[in-house]
This record gives sequence, structure tokens and C-alpha cells, in this order.
Amino acid sequence: MTTIRIAHLSIGDELLDGRIKDGNVFGLGTSLAMIGLELVEARIVPDVRLQIVSSLQSLASVADVIVTSGGLGPTSDDVTAECVAAAAGVGLRFDEPAFARMTAMFEARGVPMPPSNRRQAMLPSTSSTLENQMGTAPGFVTPLPHDGRVVQVWSFPGVPREYEHLRDDALLPALRARLDGEKPTTLVRRTLRSLGLAESAIGERLAAFEQAHPEVRVQYRAAFPEVVVRLVLQVPADADLVDTGRRADALAHEARAAIGKSVWGVGDEPLEQRVLDRMRARGLTIAVAESCTGGLLAKRLTDQPGSSDVVLGGVVAYANSVKQSVLDVSGAELEAHGAVSANVAEAMARGARTHLRADLAISVTGVAGPSGGTSDKPVGTVWFGIADATGTTSVHKKFPDFGRERIREMTAATALRLVLEHVEQRER
Amino acid sequence: MTTIRIAHLSIGDELLDGRIKDGNVFGLGTSLAMIGLELVEARIVPDVRLQIVSSLQSLASVADVIVTSGGLGPTSDDVTAECVAAAAGVGLRFDEPAFARMTAMFEARGVPMPPSNRRQAMLPSTSSTLENQMGTAPGFVTPLPHDGRVVQVWSFPGVPREYEHLRDDALLPALRARLDGEKPTTLVRRTLRSLGLAESAIGERLAAFEQAHPEVRVQYRAAFPEVVVRLVLQVPADADLVDTGRRADALAHEARAAIGKSVWGVGDEPLEQRVLDRMRARGLTIAVAESCTGGLLAKRLTDQPGSSDVVLGGVVAYANSVKQSVLDVSGAELEAHGAVSANVAEAMARGARTHLRADLAISVTGVAGPSGGTSDKPVGTVWFGIADATGTTSVHKKFPDFGRERIREMTAATALRLVLEHVEQRER
Repeated sequence: MTTIRIAHLSIGDELLDGRIKDGNVFGLGTSLAMIGLELVEARIVPDVRLQIVSSLQSLASVADVIVTSGGLGPTSDDVTAECVAAAAGVGLRFDEPAFARMTAMFEARGVPMPPSNRRQAMLPSTSSTLENQMGTAPGFVTPLPHDGRVVQVWSFPGVPREYEHLRDDALLPALRARLDGEKPTTLVRRTLRSLGLAESAIGERLAAFEQAHPEVRVQYRAAFPEVVVRLVLQVPADADLVDTGRRADALAHEARAAIGKSVWGVGDEPLEQRVLDRMRARGLTIAVAESCTGGLLAKRLTDQPGSSDVVLGGVVAYANSVKQSVLDVSGAELEAHGAVSANVAEAMARGARTHLRADLAISVTGVAGPSGGTSDKPVGTVWFGIADATGTTSVHKKFPDFGRERIREMTAATALRLVLEHVEQRER
Repeated sequence: MTTIRIAHLSIGDELLDGRIKDGNVFGLGTSLAMIGLELVEARIVPDVRLQIVSSLQSLASVADVIVTSGGLGPTSDDVTAECVAAAAGVGLRFDEPAFARMTAMFEARGVPMPPSNRRQAMLPSTSSTLENQMGTAPGFVTPLPHDGRVVQVWSFPGVPREYEHLRDDALLPALRARLDGEKPTTLVRRTLRSLGLAESAIGERLAAFEQAHPEVRVQYRAAFPEVVVRLVLQVPADADLVDTGRRADALAHEARAAIGKSVWGVGDEPLEQRVLDRMRARGLTIAVAESCTGGLLAKRLTDQPGSSDVVLGGVVAYANSVKQSVLDVSGAELEAHGAVSANVAEAMARGARTHLRADLAISVTGVAGPSGGTSDKPVGTVWFGIADATGTTSVHKKFPDFGRERIREMTAATALRLVLEHVEQRER
């Protein structure tokens, strides 16, 4: 699918025995996506010569470029350079300038250089050196002949800041230049975000769409409680941007119509960001009153930097006494309808709007479980209230009982969605 | 090094194109380390049949057990079962009981099951089914004949909680049983939980301990903002339980003393659970008043089922107007000291305690960034207030600027720790 096939090989015992979490693969994937490229495969192997060499050879059969991370240190278990050389069928050379740089770095720090650091200047004889400004170990690029092709092996230190430096300052510019030379293709993506339908149900609704558009790659991802659907379209890099954009938009529109109203938006920003943007555009402020979500709804809104011009705050009214003392819900109302009811949800929203002096307030009261459910109001029952200058409304939901944490997440996401709908309706 | 060689295969486009960071490999590595096993290799491949099948075959040559994650969903890009079957040279079977469980799960939730979910019950014909209590897709174990040996392929969903459930409840017991067949030992563990010191600093403080006790395996895990240190002691399976427990307790005590007071507890329960337990034991109730954490502190307390007998609720006083209108912080105080100050933190705690009628209130006001910092009060500056029947105190912290999200997490955890210390001091 991509014009340059890229594979990753992470090297190090510590990545396999639970000591270190490899973040380089994910970071490279993100960076490549930005220039329309994708990883074709990633592997993690221990500091074992045989496994490193055979992985390089086998990745060479599926990739044009292999990036290795790790194994460039000064100790005996750092064997990347000799393995890359072995895979390429060459020996090692001593890189005089790299060694001089290393020595100078130690001198600048006033530390004597341990003799073992000399190892770090032994590079594959056919490699080009990549200057590493963040550490002593140089990176290097080695041509690996494979089946009549030449695969480029880029070797970086595993330390994240050194890896990222060489990735961003050496590899990505080289890939970009190579893409420009090849008149490659570009990937155009549209992301649909859906709340309230299972991944499988969305897949079914898109089955006809997938059949009608075999040129579109449809990717599904469950990001609980949302499902994210991505449409990926491959077009020549010199295709007209406006035309391509229109085509992608039309496809997204068609897919959205097929899925139905569980799709709340197209794009990459999270639901709370969309809510904040819409409210900010209209100069509105918000307050929240939460019972079963216990702070999660306010947390999601304030996760976003810059939320303070829209979010005034909230009240976590976990106990009924707090619903009464802080939100002015009447004891009679609590008595008559119970805390999980339309009346109490509306009273909570009104109370939050009044006391926090917000344009709009949303409230949440429900049974998150595991206990507290009744036959009338089983676990998963939630009432939402929205109050603004035009009045107060309430909405009832019964979520499936996927457990306390998930019910709280579904509730917070649904509250955000209700606010979004409310504000967008007012816009029309 | 290991007696059972284990490899991992993560399956999914989203793991290679920068959408999702694979955490399952790291988690498995950590779990295996606890029973003295290690991964021999890990790979990530896209949802491409040919690549999945050839990876299974090539991993079979270096491993006795292969764990796959992902690709068990109901949509067309979920192809793990058919690829495992292909690699094993068998067809698919329809798992009636798994399908019945799936149907029942949907019914219990009151949701109709989409027909495409039937796909999830199509498993390799020679596989054994693993019941998944966290989701619809069953896991399965398939024998893969390779070079006269039989490699076990364990296939789990990629969703972390489902993966972890099957890892911990099916795979690890099976591996342990297989190991026990070889050498009957038991692992005894003690977990120290620390807040406020970096992993490397803890490692340094434990260097002498590690040298003095080579028989104890010390594992470090950063669970931001905490660091979790585990002491693992391997003893013969028939060792005296009481003696062994005493020895483990003594080791934990010694390690705790070496690390110092950043350790807040020994055990597996989270900080908020410890706070709730201590307060519940004393019959105390709590209210929170949050500014920069925006609901996160209340959320953490109410994450715990059964928290409602201790947690009354809270006020998210994001805007200064809310600090005034709901928490009675005076305009003069805000004017004189600024919102991020000892005076305002104390006033917030007092206001929350009074209005929510709690025994104890904790408040948080700080600069989470990215903007809002000044030379006086840079990003990361936080004031905490605690009010109870004996009066009000405040504590100042300057957290390193690791970004908004981490500052908020450090702040919430520190607030919980302050409450714990406060309550435990009162106990003495």
C-alpha cells in the first residue's frame, strides 16, 4: 500500500522481560503516518546475534527500509553493529571522526572516557555515519543487498531522545526526499467517530459501503465507549488536493449516512474538544453536576488545555445531602422520585447553572453499580438533565451492564454528546 | 535461559500506523518475569493474512508457546482465527457453546446481537476454547505442529482488559503448572508502592539491598505517578508458609526502610482504596474542592465501588467565580494572594467541608499548564489544603513540568497521599 515499505527491529533483552516498554515503534508509526507511510512489520528481539541477523534478513524480504533501535551501547551485550555487518556480508570499520566526537564529548563533561566506548565507533564497513547530537553512540545507515535489491538499514540508539533525534533529523527528511523523487502516492484519511453502537453493528452497516468502494480501506477501532472508523484512500501524490478532499468528504458522508446517527462527528479531535469548540464559538460557559460519574465528566472537559474559558466548574453530588445542600434539590423531590429520576436530574442541572452562574449546565444521576440496582432502576440506569436560558430538559438511558468503570465512561461520553447536540441544534 | 520459550504476535494495522500503542507485549513480559520466564521474540504485523501465517510459522521455530493478540473482532479485517487455522493446517469449526454465551451476553444487556458476531465463534477446528468473561470474543488455544514438535498458540483479543483477563486467568496458570511439573517452587511476593521518587532513584537506594539479597528478585515498574517495587522470592513449594511469609515481610520492611518515606504502603490495593479503607474504619466522610485537577481527584475516589459511604462529593471550582460563589472564598483573598496560594487552598477546603458537611475536606489549586505559569508560580506549582474538626493546614508542592496530564495526575495522587498521612497520623 505504501511506496516505501518500512520495517522496525527493536533490539534488547530489556524490551522482552518487562523492564522497558518499547515506545519507538509507536512513535515511528505516528511520524510515518504524517508523510503517508506505514510500517509493514515490527519485531522485538533479544541481544542474541543469531536472532538479530536472521530477523534483518527476513525483514529485508518485506521491506525497503529497516530501522533498528538499541544495541549501540558500549557493553558486551551491544551487538547491533556487528549483526548488521554480518547480515550485509561485510566487516567492521573504525570510524575515526565519530571516535573523536565521542572523546570530545567526554572531555567537555570533564569525565574520562571508559576504554569500552571505543566499541561504539566500530561500524559496518559499508555504512554511512549519522551524527548523534544527543549522545555518544553514532547512528549509521548500511546497505543490505537482498535478492537483487538493496535494502537500507538505519540503526539508531534505543534511548528515546536519541532515537527521536535521528528519526526526525535524519530518517524522515531522507524518506521525504525519496518520496518526492518517486512521485509517490498519498494517503487521504477521514475519521468517523461513533458513540452508542457496537463495532460489529457498525461493520454490518458499512458492509455494502465496503463492497461498493473496494478502493477504500476501512479500519475499525474500538476506543471505548466510542468506535472510530477510518476511511483510507490512496491517491497519486500529484492528484488535485481539492478534488481528492471532496471525494474523501463524499465518501465520509456516505459512510456516515450508512452508519446512522451514532456518528457524532468527522475528524480527529475528541468529543470534549468538539464540545468546547462549539461552546467557545458561541461564547457559552458550562457547569456540570455529577452523581454516578463522580468527577469524570468534569475531568474530561478539563483534560483539554484552554478549557477554562468555557468550563466554570462543577459539583460532584455523590451523596443526596450534597444534592440538597449545594444544588438545592428538594428533599421532597428526592423522596418522591428517588435520586435517579428525571426530576432530580433537572433540579441538579438547574442548581448547578444557578450557583455556578453558567450559560448551560448538564447533570448526571444514575446507578453505576456494582450494587445499588433495583428492578425498577437496574445498574446502568442514568438520567441526564440540561438547563440553559430556555429551560430544562431530561434524557433517560439504560446502558448495558459492562461494569462500573465502563458505565461511568459511557455516561460521561453520553453527557458530552447530549451537550454537543444541544448546542448544535441551537446553531441551526 | 527459560524452560518454556514464549513468543508474541500482535496483530492489527492500528498498531503499526501510529493509532495505538501496543501495551500487551510489555504487560506479558512483566507477568512472565514474575514466574521466571521471558519472551524470546515479539512481532507486530498488520491484518494481512500472508504475513500473519508466515509469522506464526517462523515464530514456531524459536518458541514453544506463541501468544497472539488482536484480530478476534467481528469485522472483515479480523482474520486471526483463520490464519492460526491455516498455519496449523486445519479448518474452522463453529463453537456452539461460545456462540450461546455470546448470545446470552447480548440478551443480558438487552441489546440484539448483530449477525456478524457469529464470526467470533468460528475457531480453528483443533483448538480449545477459552471463556472470555470480559467480552464476546472467546480466546482459544491451537496446537501448531512444527518440525516434529507441537507449539501451542494462545489467541487473545487485543483489548487490554480482555487480554489481561485471559493472560492472568488462563495462560499464566497453565504455564505455572507446566513449570511446576519441572521444579516445584512457589513465588512469594511483596509489593511496595512509592510516590515522589523516580524509578532510578529508588533503584539506587535499593542497590545495597539487592546485593545483600541475591535470592530476591527486585522488579521495578513505573505506574505513573507511582513507582511499584516488587520483591519476588522463590521458595520450594513445600516450604513452611508462616516462615516464608515472615521472611518476605522482613525483606519488605528492610526495602521500605532503604527507600525511605516515599513508600506509602505495602500491598496491591490502589492509593484511593487505602484512603477509603482508613476513613471508613474511623467513620469519617470526605469532600474535595478541586481547581487544576478539574474532577480527577473526585473521580479517583469514586472509581472504587462502595466509595459512597465515605465520599460525599466535591466541587470543581475551575473558575474563580465558582471558588467564591460555591466555596465562599473571599474576593479579597483571591485578590491579595492569587488563586494558587496557601490562603485560597485553605479557604477552599474550609468551604467544601462546611457546604458538603464532611468530616474532612481536601482542596487543590495549582497551575497545570501549558499556559498560566508565571516566574513566581511556574507551571507545576500546587497548593493543597486540608480542613477537619481540628483546623486547616496547607502544603505546597512544585512538580516538574512533565506536561498538563502528568501534573494533574501527580497532583491528584499527592492529594490522596496527604489525606492518607493526615488520617494515619490521627490514628496514632
